[in-house]
Amino acid sequence: MSINNLGVVHRKITRADKAAVDKLARFGVATIHEAMGRVGLMKPYMRPIYPGLKICGPAITVLLQPGDNWMLHVAAGEIKEGDVVVAGCTTDSEDGFFGDLLATSFRARGARGLVIDGGVRDVAELTEMKFPVVSRAISARGTIKVTLGSVNIPVVCAGATIHPGDVIVADDDGVVVVPAAVAAQAADAAEAREKNEADKRAQLAAGVLGLDMYKMREPLEKAGLKYVD
Amino acid sequence: MSINNLGVVHRKITRADKAAVDKLARFGVATIHEAMGRVGLMKPYMRPIYPGLKICGPAITVLLQPGDNWMLHVAAGEIKEGDVVVAGCTTDSEDGFFGDLLATSFRARGARGLVIDGGVRDVAELTEMKFPVVSRAISARGTIKVTLGSVNIPVVCAGATIHPGDVIVADDDGVVVVPAAVAAQAADAAEAREKNEADKRAQLAAGVLGLDMYKMREPLEKAGLKYVD
Amino acid sequence: MSINNLGVVHRKITRADKAAVDKLARFGVATIHEAMGRVGLMKPYMRPIYPGLKICGPAITVLLQPGDNWMLHVAAGEIKEGDVVVAGCTTDSEDGFFGDLLATSFRARGARGLVIDGGVRDVAELTEMKFPVVSRAISARGTIKVTLGSVNIPVVCAGATIHPGDVIVADDDGVVVVPAAVAAQAADAAEAREKNEADKRAQLAAGVLGLDMYKMREPLEKAGLKYVD
Amino acid sequence: MSINNLGVVHRKITRADKAAVDKLARFGVATIHEAMGRVGLMKPYMRPIYPGLKICGPAITVLLQPGDNWMLHVAAGEIKEGDVVVAGCTTDSEDGFFGDLLATSFRARGARGLVIDGGVRDVAELTEMKFPVVSRAISARGTIKVTLGSVNIPVVCAGATIHPGDVIVADDDGVVVVPAAVAAQAADAAEAREKNEADKRAQLAAGVLGLDMYKMREPLEKAGLKYVD
Amino acid sequence: MSINNLGVVHRKITRADKAAVDKLARFGVATIHEAMGRVGLMKPYMRPIYPGLKICGPAITVLLQPGDNWMLHVAAGEIKEGDVVVAGCTTDSEDGFFGDLLATSFRARGARGLVIDGGVRDVAELTEMKFPVVSRAISARGTIKVTLGSVNIPVVCAGATIHPGDVIVADDDGVVVVPAAVAAQAADAAEAREKNEADKRAQLAAGVLGLDMYKMREPLEKAGLKYVD
Amino acid sequence: MSINNLGVVHRKITRADKAAVDKLARFGVATIHEAMGRVGLMKPYMRPIYPGLKICGPAITVLLQPGDNWMLHVAAGEIKEGDVVVAGCTTDSEDGFFGDLLATSFRARGARGLVIDGGVRDVAELTEMKFPVVSRAISARGTIKVTLGSVNIPVVCAGATIHPGDVIVADDDGVVVVPAAVAAQAADAAEAREKNEADKRAQLAAGVLGLDMYKMREPLEKAGLKYVD
Repeated sequence: MSINNLGVVHRKITRADKAAVDKLARFGVATIHEAMGRVGLMKPYMRPIYPGLKICGPAITVLLQPGDNWMLHVAAGEIKEGDVVVAGCTTDSEDGFFGDLLATSFRARGARGLVIDGGVRDVAELTEMKFPVVSRAISARGTIKVTLGSVNIPVVCAGATIHPGDVIVADDDGVVVVPAAVAAQAADAAEAREKNEADKRAQLAAGVLGLDMYKMREPLEKAGLKYVD
Repeated sequence: MSINNLGVVHRKITRADKAAVDKLARFGVATIHEAMGRVGLMKPYMRPIYPGLKICGPAITVLLQPGDNWMLHVAAGEIKEGDVVVAGCTTDSEDGFFGDLLATSFRARGARGLVIDGGVRDVAELTEMKFPVVSRAISARGTIKVTLGSVNIPVVCAGATIHPGDVIVADDDGVVVVPAAVAAQAADAAEAREKNEADKRAQLAAGVLGLDMYKMREPLEKAGLKYVD
Repeated sequence: MSINNLGVVHRKITRADKAAVDKLARFGVATIHEAMGRVGLMKPYMRPIYPGLKICGPAITVLLQPGDNWMLHVAAGEIKEGDVVVAGCTTDSEDGFFGDLLATSFRARGARGLVIDGGVRDVAELTEMKFPVVSRAISARGTIKVTLGSVNIPVVCAGATIHPGDVIVADDDGVVVVPAAVAAQAADAAEAREKNEADKRAQLAAGVLGLDMYKMREPLEKAGLKYVD
Repeated sequence: MSINNLGVVHRKITRADKAAVDKLARFGVATIHEAMGRVGLMKPYMRPIYPGLKICGPAITVLLQPGDNWMLHVAAGEIKEGDVVVAGCTTDSEDGFFGDLLATSFRARGARGLVIDGGVRDVAELTEMKFPVVSRAISARGTIKVTLGSVNIPVVCAGATIHPGDVIVADDDGVVVVPAAVAAQAADAAEAREKNEADKRAQLAAGVLGLDMYKMREPLEKAGLKYVD
Repeated sequence: MSINNLGVVHRKITRADKAAVDKLARFGVATIHEAMGRVGLMKPYMRPIYPGLKICGPAITVLLQPGDNWMLHVAAGEIKEGDVVVAGCTTDSEDGFFGDLLATSFRARGARGLVIDGGVRDVAELTEMKFPVVSRAISARGTIKVTLGSVNIPVVCAGATIHPGDVIVADDDGVVVVPAAVAAQAADAAEAREKNEADKRAQLAAGVLGLDMYKMREPLEKAGLKYVD
Repeated sequence: MSINNLGVVHRKITRADKAAVDKLARFGVATIHEAMGRVGLMKPYMRPIYPGLKICGPAITVLLQPGDNWMLHVAAGEIKEGDVVVAGCTTDSEDGFFGDLLATSFRARGARGLVIDGGVRDVAELTEMKFPVVSRAISARGTIKVTLGSVNIPVVCAGATIHPGDVIVADDDGVVVVPAAVAAQAADAAEAREKNEADKRAQLAAGVLGLDMYKMREPLEKAGLKYVD
C-alpha cells in the first residue's frame, strides 16, 4: 500500500448525474448549502475574481504543492465538457498558480471554471474571457513545475472535502460541494426550499414580520425576551 | 439590577433629529469623521457589498450571538422609516446572518440599510435590490435562532460604540457613528469643512502645492527637513 | 554620517529611461515579473481601489510615519510629469493617508498614480477622477502632519525595495518594481515573453495540452507520476 | 456640548466596591464571564505577555491615538492603589506604547496591571518585574506624544466597552469586564458557579459522562442523534 | 441515503495498530511528516497550549457546530484508553469549546489529548493537569449545546482530513495525521529517517557543510549559482 | 548587467566593526531602535521561538524562494564566527525552512542565531540547544532544494532592508537592523539613552510622574487637555 496519495492521476471518475448538475445550476450556493443541512461550504476567504460569476459542474480534483502548478497542467488532460477544476494545496500558498494561458486551455477542454485554494493572475484577462475563478488570493507571482501532487484523489480545498465527480457550485456568496451520490437529492431539496422562499418573500415584502410569519413570538418569550417601553 | 443587558428590546428610542440626519446624508464618511474631530469610525475591515453605496439614518442597534440571527428578526419589528440597522456580536462570527429575505422585510419596514459585524449572503440579490449593506464578511453559511441577544441597547460594532438613535453614515470609505445629541453640530461642521475643501481643491488643481497652501514649509524646516540636490 | 535616513528630500533622482517606461506600460505586471526572473513583486495584500486600473512610471519614493501623511505633501513638490508616487511606512498603519485633495494636487503636478502601503480614502471620488491607487487598505481615518519621514530615499513598500526613479507597474494583478538600470532590458524581455505567449495561447485554444506543448510528459513520468484507470 | 470626548481627564470616578473586587480576584475569567451570562469578554487576540499572570482591579480608562502614548502618562496621574489601566485606541496600532519605564511609574502609583489594545515592549523586563500586561502585540516600536486622547471616559478595548471604575479581570484565558454596578452580583454568581463545578469535576473524574451528569441523552435523541454500531 | 453526515455517532471504529501507535510516539511531527512524503500536516495556526507537549494516539473524530460543544460531550462517551480527540468545525469559531471539566472527563475515560480547530479555555488548569491540547485559539467564551454535529465520521481539522482511528501525533512543531492503514509503514519510515539523521547530525556538528554532505555543489552549479569574490 | 540579483553568492562582505557589535549586544532592541531615531525594526509578527533569547551579530543575508531552503545550505558555507543568518523570501511562505540539522551546522560554523521571514521546525530541539531563532511561523512542513535565490545581497526581511554585514539584534521585543556603517554610532547612542533611563527609572520608581519629569503639563494644556472633577 502506498504511504501517501501523491503522484497519482485517476483517469476514471464517477461524475455526478448530469441532470442533477443541471438542476443544481439553477440554485444559489446559500440555498443549496441550506438544503443540504448546512454542510459542504468552503471558507469565506474564497472570493470570486469578478462579481456575478456562477460555476456549476462535476469536480476534477487537484492536489497542488506550494508555489508549483505542475498538476494543473496534468489536470487539463482530464477535463471533460462541463467539468470544474478544484485545487487544494499541501500548504498555504498565495502564488499565482493560474492565468490566462491555462484558462484558455481549460476552456478549450471544456472546463466551466476553477476553484483554487491559492492565488491566480491575469484577472483582467480572465474577467474579459468570462472564465470564472474563485480563489484565495490574486497574485502575479509565477510558479514552478517540479513536485508531484495528484489529480482526482479526495482533496481538501478551503476547509471542504471534495471527491472527484462531486458537484461544485460557486457564486458571489461562496462555494459549496455536493457529493455526487446526493446530487439529485440536494437539487430536489434546493428546489423545495426555493419554492418555499417565494411565498415568504411576498409576505415579508407586504410588511409581515418574520416574528409572525415564522411564529417566533412564543419561543422568544419563553427564552425570556422582554420588551421595555 | 440585571447582571447583563441580554434579552431586552427597548421600544422607545430617541432618534437623532431628522433634519440633522438629512443634512449628514449630503456628506461623505471621511468628511463627517474629520468634522467630529476624528472619532466614531468603525474599523476598516467593514466593507460595502457593492461599490458606490451610501447609507444614512438613525440606528436600530442589535446585539447578536455568534452564528445566530434571531435578534435581526426581532429588530425588524422595531424599524421605522429611515432607520439603519446596526449589529454587533458577542464574539467574532463570519456566518451569513442576513440575506435577501430579511432585506425584503427590512425594506418593507422602512430600513435604509444594514451595518453588521458579521457575514451576509445573497449578495447578488442584495446588489440587484440595491439594499445597501456594509459587513465584515460574505458567507453563505446559515445561522440558527436559539440564543437571546438584545435590541436597542448600546452595542459595539467593529470597534465603535453605537447607542440606539445615533446616526450611522456609510459609504465606500467605511462607516462613521454620529451620536444623536451632536448630529446637528456634526452636520454643520461637515458642511463647513466641505465648503473649505472646494477652494482648496481649486488651488491644488491649479498646481499650488499643499506645502504652500497649508504653509507647511516653515514647520517642516523647523522639524529639520533637509532638501538635498 | 547620519545615523538614519529620516528628514531628507533628495531632489535629483535618476528616472528610468522614458522609452523603457513607455514600453513597459504595454505589458502586464505578471509578464514583467516573469520577464525579470520572478523578482520585484509587492505582496498580494496590495489591491487596486477600482478594477481595471493601470499604472506605469518612475517612482518618487516616500517614507511615511504611521498615521502621518506630512511627507506626501512634501513628495507632491517633487513630482514631474509621468511619475508614480510610492509610499512605505515605518510601521504598519491602515489610516487614510491620501484622499481626493492630494490626488488633485498629485494629478496637477503630473503624477500617474499612487502605490501606498497604508490606507486611502475618498475612493468614490478617486474612482470618478480615475486617479489610480493601489493600497493596503481603505479607511476614512484622517492623519496628522507631525513627524518627518523622507522623500526619494530607498524604501520598502509591501515587501519590495524601491529606489527613486525605478519603474513602478501596477494593474489588477498587483505591483512590480523594475530597477531603473534594467528597465529597457526588462521591457525587451517582457516583449519577448509576450510574443511567445501569443503562439502558446493559440495552440492551447485549439485544444493542445500544455503537457504536450511544454513537453512535460517525460519529466512527469521520471518524477514518478502514475496514471490509474 | 462637546462634539467629541477628546482632550478630557475625568478625575472623579466611581470605582467598583473593593470587597467585590477582592472577591472577583478569586475567580478565573471564564468563570466570571459565564456567571455574567456570557458577556463582557475582550476578543481573544488579547494575550498575556507571560503565562500565569492574573490581573484584577477597577479600571482607569484611556483612549489613545495611534502610535502616541501621551495619554498613558496622563493616566499615570490618575492611578490609585489597586487600579488597572485599560487602553483602547482610535485606530488599530501595534506600536510599543508601553515599556518598563511606564511600568515602573504605574507600579509606583499603585497599578496592578495594564490591558492595552496595542503593542508593548521591554517584555523581558516586564516579566522580570512581574508587571502583568495583556496586549494586542509586542513591538519595540516607539511612540510619540502629540495628539490628545482622553482619560476616564468610556472606551472600547478589543471589542468590549469599559467605563471607568469597572472591574477588569485578566488571566491566561483572556480579559473580562465587570460593570462596577454589578460587581458584587457577579462575584456572588461566580462563587456559586465555582461551587457547583467542584462537584461536577469529582463526578467526571470518577468516569461519569457529561451525557449522564447533564442529562443530555434525551435532548440529543430528540434532536435526532443516531448511534451506529 | 442521508444527504449529509450530521447527527451520527459511529461506535465501531478501526483504530490504528497499537504497536504502530506506540512506535510513532517515539518520533517528532516533522520526522513523521517527512517520512510520509510530506503529507498529513495540519495548518501552522494550530498551536500547543504549553511548550513541550506531546500527543500520540488513534483519533476519535468530532464535527462541531460553531460556538457549540455538544458533540464533545458525546465524543467523551466513545473514548477508549489511549485515544486522542480531534475536532473540526463546520465554520470557523474561536469560542472556548473545551475547558478543565471536559479535560477531567476525557482523562478519566482514557484520552491522551485534544486537537481542536477552535478555541479552548482554562489553559492554566489544563497546563497544571498536563492535559495536552493543540488549538486554533484560546478564549474564555462559553459555548452552547444545541445543534448536532457528528462523532467518528471523516472530518477536516485545520486543513487535514482525519478518519476515525487514524493516528494523531502532535508536538511543538504542529500536528500530523497518519492514516491507520499506513501507521506501521509510517513508523518504520520515521525510524529509518531518524537513524539516518543521527549520522548527518554528527557530520554537521563536526563542521562538514550540507553542501558537501548532500552533494549539492554540482546541482547548484548546474542551476547557475555564481560565487563572486 | 544582470536583470536580477538571483543565483549569486557574494563571498566578501564588510562586517560591522566587532567592537561596535559587542557593544550593541549589551542593549535591548527597543533601546537601539530608539537610539537610531526609530528606524530599522522588523515587523512585530516576527517572534522568538523561546522566551528570553538574545541575538547580536553581523548579517549573512539570504534570499529564499517559497518552500525551498537550498540557499540556507549555501549560506552555511559563508558563516564566520559570530555571524547571524537573516533570510527573506521572494513570496510569503510559512513552511519549515530550518530545523535542528541546519542549526547544528550553523552552530558548528559559528553562527549566533537565525532570523527568518518564514517557518522553522524542531523548535523543542532548537530550544534545548539554545540555538536562538526569530521567525514568522513554526511549521513542520519540509522544503525542497530546487530554485536559486542568493546569499549576501541586500534583502528585505519582515519589512526591513538588510545589507550583508549589518548588525542584527533580536530579543523578546523583536528585531532591529543596524547598518554596518553606523554601528558604532548606534551603540554609543544606545549607551547614552540607557544611562539616561536609569535616572528616569529611579525617579518614576519614587513616584514622580512622567507628566512632571518630562515637563508635559504645559504642552498638554496648550493642546487643550481639560481636567474635570
